[in-house]
Amino acid sequence: MRYYPTTTISSSLFSLFRRTRSLRSSAVVTPPMATTEDSLRQALAEKQSTIDARGTAIRQLKSSGASKSEIDEAVKALNDLKLEKTSIENQLKASISGEGSSCNKEAFRQAVVNTLERRLFYIPSFKIYRGVAGLYDYGPPGCAVKSNVLAFWRQHFVLEEDMLEVDCPCVTPEVVLKASGHVDKFTDLMVKDEKTGNCYRADHLLKDFCKDKLENDLAMSADKAAELKHVLAVLDDLSGEQLGAKIKEYGIVAPDTKNPLSDPYPFNLMFQTQIGPSGASTGYMRPETAQGIFVNFRDLYYYNGNKLPFAAAQIGQAFRNEISPRQGLLRVREFTLAEIEHFVDPDDKSHPKYSEVSSLKFLMFPRDEQMSGQSAKVLCLGDAVSKGIVNNQTLAYFIGRVYLFLTRLGIDEKRLRFRQHLPNEMAHYAADCWDAEIESSYGWIECVGIADRSAYDLRAHTDKSGVALVAQEKFAEPKEVEKLVITPVKKELGLAFKGSQKMVVEALEAMNEKEAMDMKAALETKGEVEFEVCTLGKTVTIKKNMLSISKEIKKEHQRVFTPSVIEPSFGIGRIIYCLYEHSFYMRPSKAGDEQLNVFRFPPLVAPIKCTVFPLVQNQQYEEVAKQISRSLTAAGVSNKKDITGTSIGKRYARTDELGVPFAVTVDSTSSVTIRERDSKDQIRVNVDEVAAVIKEVSEGRCQWTDILQKYPAHTSASADE
Amino acid sequence: MRYYPTTTISSSLFSLFRRTRSLRSSAVVTPPMATTEDSLRQALAEKQSTIDARGTAIRQLKSSGASKSEIDEAVKALNDLKLEKTSIENQLKASISGEGSSCNKEAFRQAVVNTLERRLFYIPSFKIYRGVAGLYDYGPPGCAVKSNVLAFWRQHFVLEEDMLEVDCPCVTPEVVLKASGHVDKFTDLMVKDEKTGNCYRADHLLKDFCKDKLENDLAMSADKAAELKHVLAVLDDLSGEQLGAKIKEYGIVAPDTKNPLSDPYPFNLMFQTQIGPSGASTGYMRPETAQGIFVNFRDLYYYNGNKLPFAAAQIGQAFRNEISPRQGLLRVREFTLAEIEHFVDPDDKSHPKYSEVSSLKFLMFPRDEQMSGQSAKVLCLGDAVSKGIVNNQTLAYFIGRVYLFLTRLGIDEKRLRFRQHLPNEMAHYAADCWDAEIESSYGWIECVGIADRSAYDLRAHTDKSGVALVAQEKFAEPKEVEKLVITPVKKELGLAFKGSQKMVVEALEAMNEKEAMDMKAALETKGEVEFEVCTLGKTVTIKKNMLSISKEIKKEHQRVFTPSVIEPSFGIGRIIYCLYEHSFYMRPSKAGDEQLNVFRFPPLVAPIKCTVFPLVQNQQYEEVAKQISRSLTAAGVSNKKDITGTSIGKRYARTDELGVPFAVTVDSTSSVTIRERDSKDQIRVNVDEVAAVIKEVSEGRCQWTDILQKYPAHTSASADE
Repeated sequence: MRYYPTTTISSSLFSLFRRTRSLRSSAVVTPPMATTEDSLRQALAEKQSTIDARGTAIRQLKSSGASKSEIDEAVKALNDLKLEKTSIENQLKASISGEGSSCNKEAFRQAVVNTLERRLFYIPSFKIYRGVAGLYDYGPPGCAVKSNVLAFWRQHFVLEEDMLEVDCPCVTPEVVLKASGHVDKFTDLMVKDEKTGNCYRADHLLKDFCKDKLENDLAMSADKAAELKHVLAVLDDLSGEQLGAKIKEYGIVAPDTKNPLSDPYPFNLMFQTQIGPSGASTGYMRPETAQGIFVNFRDLYYYNGNKLPFAAAQIGQAFRNEISPRQGLLRVREFTLAEIEHFVDPDDKSHPKYSEVSSLKFLMFPRDEQMSGQSAKVLCLGDAVSKGIVNNQTLAYFIGRVYLFLTRLGIDEKRLRFRQHLPNEMAHYAADCWDAEIESSYGWIECVGIADRSAYDLRAHTDKSGVALVAQEKFAEPKEVEKLVITPVKKELGLAFKGSQKMVVEALEAMNEKEAMDMKAALETKGEVEFEVCTLGKTVTIKKNMLSISKEIKKEHQRVFTPSVIEPSFGIGRIIYCLYEHSFYMRPSKAGDEQLNVFRFPPLVAPIKCTVFPLVQNQQYEEVAKQISRSLTAAGVSNKKDITGTSIGKRYARTDELGVPFAVTVDSTSSVTIRERDSKDQIRVNVDEVAAVIKEVSEGRCQWTDILQKYPAHTSASADE
Repeated sequence: MRYYPTTTISSSLFSLFRRTRSLRSSAVVTPPMATTEDSLRQALAEKQSTIDARGTAIRQLKSSGASKSEIDEAVKALNDLKLEKTSIENQLKASISGEGSSCNKEAFRQAVVNTLERRLFYIPSFKIYRGVAGLYDYGPPGCAVKSNVLAFWRQHFVLEEDMLEVDCPCVTPEVVLKASGHVDKFTDLMVKDEKTGNCYRADHLLKDFCKDKLENDLAMSADKAAELKHVLAVLDDLSGEQLGAKIKEYGIVAPDTKNPLSDPYPFNLMFQTQIGPSGASTGYMRPETAQGIFVNFRDLYYYNGNKLPFAAAQIGQAFRNEISPRQGLLRVREFTLAEIEHFVDPDDKSHPKYSEVSSLKFLMFPRDEQMSGQSAKVLCLGDAVSKGIVNNQTLAYFIGRVYLFLTRLGIDEKRLRFRQHLPNEMAHYAADCWDAEIESSYGWIECVGIADRSAYDLRAHTDKSGVALVAQEKFAEPKEVEKLVITPVKKELGLAFKGSQKMVVEALEAMNEKEAMDMKAALETKGEVEFEVCTLGKTVTIKKNMLSISKEIKKEHQRVFTPSVIEPSFGIGRIIYCLYEHSFYMRPSKAGDEQLNVFRFPPLVAPIKCTVFPLVQNQQYEEVAKQISRSLTAAGVSNKKDITGTSIGKRYARTDELGVPFAVTVDSTSSVTIRERDSKDQIRVNVDEVAAVIKEVSEGRCQWTDILQKYPAHTSASADE
């Protein structure tokens, strides 16, 4: 019998389902273990009680009129103890903040973000009106990076995998999101300042409280610290009541006003609106693009020649009305998703191109390693499948393809891991889920979710719309199948149940095989049986003459089934932000007097592939620069001229900061210098070859190292060396 | 003094401004002239009155007992008259419907739309839930066409013109759209069914009534017909009161129920929502992308090295909550816009690349031709500028670039015209506006608006935000400028006006040069003057001792000004729909027993560039087909294998219907046949050259005719000939 989420799913499970779907970052739940930190807290508490005891002793010495030398000696000993305590406190602070690295991380992030904002990679939206939290604009270089990432996504997934791309509206009528569960369950728990009405996310307040205590209350007992750590670990699983109880217990108040807070209550994260003028048709801005694909399953299946497997894909905006957005580009109210729904026969999840990825090796973090407190380790994808760690080939195929996608963009593979969902993180219907997590200064960030969601979504829309979203497998020859046949005798049932007859009949017909065969046996031995009819809310007595139950052999010509869906879902903004962090570095200027910023973007994603500089302001050189720029543009290579009179070193620094991989310096009218950003290698190339060389190397058809072999090096010292 | 739209703009002007901005189709207002139709109506009315008179005469003959032969003769004459009347009626019907062409248009449209829907170019959104009016999905081929159009747009405009592309959110806070005028004025007039509450667009009802009358009430007098035609011509200019009066006068009722209708009232077309959980922050889904660029002007100007001119561009979704969407893809509630805002010094609207477009010739429809009832004619763009028909070079440059963009996509240049806005269509601040209109089965459709909006938008946001959105021109040497100086004597003003002093001072300081110099003269002669202070709503007496007015010579080092903006705004969905109509044709099948559909998309926009067929189902051929498909994919050429056993002719027909320009038939393992869609020419190419040939011709680096010269023709009769 079909599963109905509204009645049987626990809200905590659903909130995890939502997180799974929602590309949120999630801390890995490591079971509390004895750590250096714990033993330091223990030592600190012991030292404090020794100090307290010595203090009392000194006061007694003084009041009992002990000698000055005796007292001085005791005070000196006490001061030594206090120094030891300070030393332990420092060790504890270092331990809490991860050997001081959180400080470095903040500084690093600040350097990246300052560069990004100054060079308009992104800008807080509507800045002249003081902005809106959680909304950002991509400025010119950010917009180019995004468009390159999306173009590569289309090439890598849609084109190479023959996917059916669709483009559906953001405005979505209520009925669709009612079916998907979003109207009822897509919520976060919120508390309100009881006086001002300001809103806060309940879990954020509790998290901030615990973190703050752990970092700053060094005198806290190891037991108390363990409790707070446990709260942090299970935070995502707490119900509204549990969150409310903890907030009360810890005396947490509104951070801005110190006013008391309301109990937590759910706030739906969808932006709501009205479709049409009547006010009678509620709509929402879609919280994900996937539903647009599911509702089109029937047409897409037909378009694919009624064959499975096939994948549909969609790139588009999604919207979440976050209660209090944080973490810059990582938690926003509007973002670009790229989603794939791969529909497959649930009985055959093999993948024809599996062998192309099965020997890949990369960091994986299976469930068991997480539960036993180990860390992620490099696994061979094929081994993970054969050992049953990854549920099936198709899921593994996408994990492999996502790995290739992210590393080709420039994500550092040492800071990329695939983390399997723990049982309590996964929706009950999901077969297996893995998140591609990328390490950034904010920690490990979920950037791609890859989930085997079984038949859940198609079934939900079949139920709500009454349109069967199913596939057929035609048998080469008809198959004989044993089928359960339940035949109610309506006359008898009518006499016995009158107005309730219909519900009793429906309940009888809905029995599964075991229930029916049990009933048959019971009726044969006892002649009657008690039967619970949920829709009536009571138990009725079924007699032998009211129905017949049998198994019959039937010929079937086809199998009709709901396909499983495997869903890789990409948070494009998150991937881009992590790529910025992974690509950023600083190096000293030629004079050594300042640090210069560089983004080491691969040419594939670089916002501009090439800059063109005349070495000096001179009409001949400027003409050559123009000509080169025109031929680059005609070849479809994005480029920028810089004809300001600034020093060539300054111009290189400007362009490095935008991550432009190649710079052409026009220093003669026949041949020019091409400089590569990271190595600062320089070669000489004839003016009429430049566009072709840059096009080849920036489209990845050859490497800079190949180019370096082919052309003479530029011998004079480069301007920024 | 600055212009404030809320107080001085007439609502009809603003509604036209909105239409200008909103890519709506607009019928050209041709002044009513004497037409064939009018004279036919006249003839019909005369014939009818003759018939009436003869009828009366016959009745008199009968009652006066005339002879049978006399009566028969009169009846025969009457019947002849009735035949003549029928003939006139038929002529009139033909004249009204444009010689029967509207019927053909409908049939043609139906053929296109059926093909588009059947092949999933587009689908009504949320179809399994019975859809939502005005929302459409792009299925796989439609999505590919759209993505090709946008990629070409980026190459043609952003890359070739060095534009700064940005990407801003759809969710927009109220303050931004308050400043732009959308919150107050972005409305359509609506009427409600007074019993059911159903909503209708007031102008649609009036338009439908007039059209229906004109088409079906043949007995209507020529005067009445002229009146209804006049109503249609001025429909867009009617105020709510005027619309309401006409609806009452004509007795128009709710079309579904025949219930009475309410008076017209404005309905705001923006989708409204709430940002954040508090309910205190109203937001809207943006009705256009342009505002995101305007609010970022300061940062973009800085990014461009504080230099003008420069252009910013944005591609993205826009939303309009239409009262009752019609016309399929042409009037929708969510659509993709591509907008350019080119910022330029208002004193210098020349364009450096103007000479590249000035010799282009195409259909233009200047204001004067429209007003005098002429039709569009082919003009040379350069002549149009030099004769002052097009306001300036930059506007003309974009008109030329839009012409090149549309025709390269495959829009038929004979069904493309650039229509200038009439004075009453243009916002008062606009310098000049031209729409690229494409003729479709729905008539001439506005697909691109190209407007010189002067400084309006930047000024509106400067006023509302308090942030100066201006540019500076630094002078090589300081310039001496004569400046008006108004110095209020606050002591005297304070004594005279007390609490109202501030408003009086502001009004005095806001005087323009002429007003100030007039006041100075009056004060010198009369000693005092009456002065109206709008903000006080009264006139006050200003005395000579209350202020000094003078002109002083000041040295200025720079000029600070608000740039003008020239805005080309592209309705991508409309362009694509018109492209579908212009690309569609039918041709007989080989057997001649059916008509086959073809889309003659140029390779640039074709959703798939190439299909690959093994001639027969055979493992060797299928292996070759796979290999060719893989090499095409690796080269970034979208392709599709069709390995069904269907006849090659059927497979060609399928792929023609998707507009695929090239088909590769694998009929040997060494060389294969390439067939071009429209000519059906076939050539033979070696297997390992295929991908390179297809890539070259589909990326437009060579033409099919060149390829045809280079490779041997396939000699055996092609399968579909």
